[in-house]
Amino acid sequence: MDGTLSQLADVYEPIRTDMDGVARVFDAELSSEYPFVNDLCLRVRSYRGKMLRPALLLLSGKACGGLGPAHATLAAVVEMVHLATLVHDDVLDEADERRGQASIHASHGNVAAVLLGDYLISHAYHLCASLDDQTAARLIGATTNTVCEGELLQNHHRGDISVDENLYFRIIRCKTGALTAAACQLGAMYAGVDRETVDALHSYGMSIGVAFQIVDDVLDIRGDQARVGKSLGRDLTAGKLTLPTIHCLANATPATSHLVRSVLQGGAEIDRDRLCASLGETDSLSYALSVACDYINRACRALDVLGPSDARASLSAMAEFVIHREL
Amino acid sequence: MDGTLSQLADVYEPIRTDMDGVARVFDAELSSEYPFVNDLCLRVRSYRGKMLRPALLLLSGKACGGLGPAHATLAAVVEMVHLATLVHDDVLDEADERRGQASIHASHGNVAAVLLGDYLISHAYHLCASLDDQTAARLIGATTNTVCEGELLQNHHRGDISVDENLYFRIIRCKTGALTAAACQLGAMYAGVDRETVDALHSYGMSIGVAFQIVDDVLDIRGDQARVGKSLGRDLTAGKLTLPTIHCLANATPATSHLVRSVLQGGAEIDRDRLCASLGETDSLSYALSVACDYINRACRALDVLGPSDARASLSAMAEFVIHREL
Repeated sequence: MDGTLSQLADVYEPIRTDMDGVARVFDAELSSEYPFVNDLCLRVRSYRGKMLRPALLLLSGKACGGLGPAHATLAAVVEMVHLATLVHDDVLDEADERRGQASIHASHGNVAAVLLGDYLISHAYHLCASLDDQTAARLIGATTNTVCEGELLQNHHRGDISVDENLYFRIIRCKTGALTAAACQLGAMYAGVDRETVDALHSYGMSIGVAFQIVDDVLDIRGDQARVGKSLGRDLTAGKLTLPTIHCLANATPATSHLVRSVLQGGAEIDRDRLCASLGETDSLSYALSVACDYINRACRALDVLGPSDARASLSAMAEFVIHREL
Repeated sequence: MDGTLSQLADVYEPIRTDMDGVARVFDAELSSEYPFVNDLCLRVRSYRGKMLRPALLLLSGKACGGLGPAHATLAAVVEMVHLATLVHDDVLDEADERRGQASIHASHGNVAAVLLGDYLISHAYHLCASLDDQTAARLIGATTNTVCEGELLQNHHRGDISVDENLYFRIIRCKTGALTAAACQLGAMYAGVDRETVDALHSYGMSIGVAFQIVDDVLDIRGDQARVGKSLGRDLTAGKLTLPTIHCLANATPATSHLVRSVLQGGAEIDRDRLCASLGETDSLSYALSVACDYINRACRALDVLGPSDARASLSAMAEFVIHREL
């Protein structure tokens, strides 16, 4: 358990034993007759980290009245979907590090990374199909459709200097928000609460996901590589504008604007110190974090629909955690 | 409609209007609010070619008593799964051509190809989840697990000179046989026949798939690039032994063995004429085709469980088509 995990221990307390159950379902589903496949999955397990999405799903279920037999399965499903996107993201970004270790892409090559992502997504759907009815499968299918569309949209606009906040939010709601929203929604649905409460949990999850992505984008610029555990400054060199750089471009001097543009379009190496200085001139990192805070507040307000419980308190604490992690 | 499709027109006659229904389900499922996503899907539609798997599914259903409302959906699902594997295969093989056109990988880059494959597989499961019960979703999930494991197994043994027939068949049963077997099995299951008949159709589909893959492997060596419509000689340069090259290695002179080994392990450029000559010495292409014929005969025998019908006659004709296409 690393430092971050132990900080989260209190937050996870209401679902501690349930999380062990999720890990068992996860491991059993991915087990293969081929040792080399198990070795690859063991590597993926190290990506698992904080298991935020399973925790959100279980806490949502508990805060909505309690967990049933489907919750552990659904929590493992959302984690597999999430890991599949991470593994494929590393291929797309040609990232060499993930959680402070060589990425699958770097250690086993592109081919293994593409196939392993496919293996994870296939097992996610297979596991989901083990439930009694199609409700979750439909929601998971619709969610992964949205995630893929978000990724395609982001890729379509690589190197595009005209990406604005509107488009940025559309992309991150799809590629990050949709899965955390679905996790919370499923937790609530399978606890049997009414539509209004399910919608509130969906809204909580969406806001958490959007805030999480904004913080991720800020960390990509000003994080500590050893603590963030992955290569930094990737977004801009990969041609992706994020909230801080979009804000900077809208408010910058011509010289700064030229610097950001040339890195974005592949014409210059990234100089992270200079980039941070430019973003400092326009106060763009603070701006991005203040927007993330707005989303966190929105997430917490969505919880008003719930009665008091340890699980609800943990959901509020999770919201705070998203904004303060590593910052 | 190209030459091959018109040859197949008679075979497809019992399901002609049903195939139009499959195309409609397929197109509706993949439709996106983003024009560039629709453009990508339009490119994928050109991969669709003969739609063998949907045809096998529908013919199996019809030969087992008739089609219900689920058949068109299931046929679109198996085609989407198949296209997703093709799109990702092109990334893995770095193939520049597919059906005589630039592959998605070549025209839109690796990133778009990985994402598009993910988009297709996601929509396949989403579409499958629209059915009333989980039966098909479970079978599709188990099948894609198997397909991924086959691909991982093949990748694990890239450049491995010790791959023998046993391992080769294990790989192709997983990566190619499993999906054609599932298509035929689903066609039968959703026509409501007994277990024995479902198993027979599964066995037919598996044999067809294995034969299809062997013929594909032969075409990769001695096909006409313009007619096969994709880059040739890829298997060996990608480090993959197939039935002809495995047979050749087991029976070759030391000089021939050295040639095959050096191409396989990346030490030499492929000289397709010389490779064909080497395979000629050991009669390895004829050997591979004779094994494919055995599988076709096995497939046809599996149909003995069915009463006579146009659809059954078409299933027999499909078996013959697999072996004679492009040869």
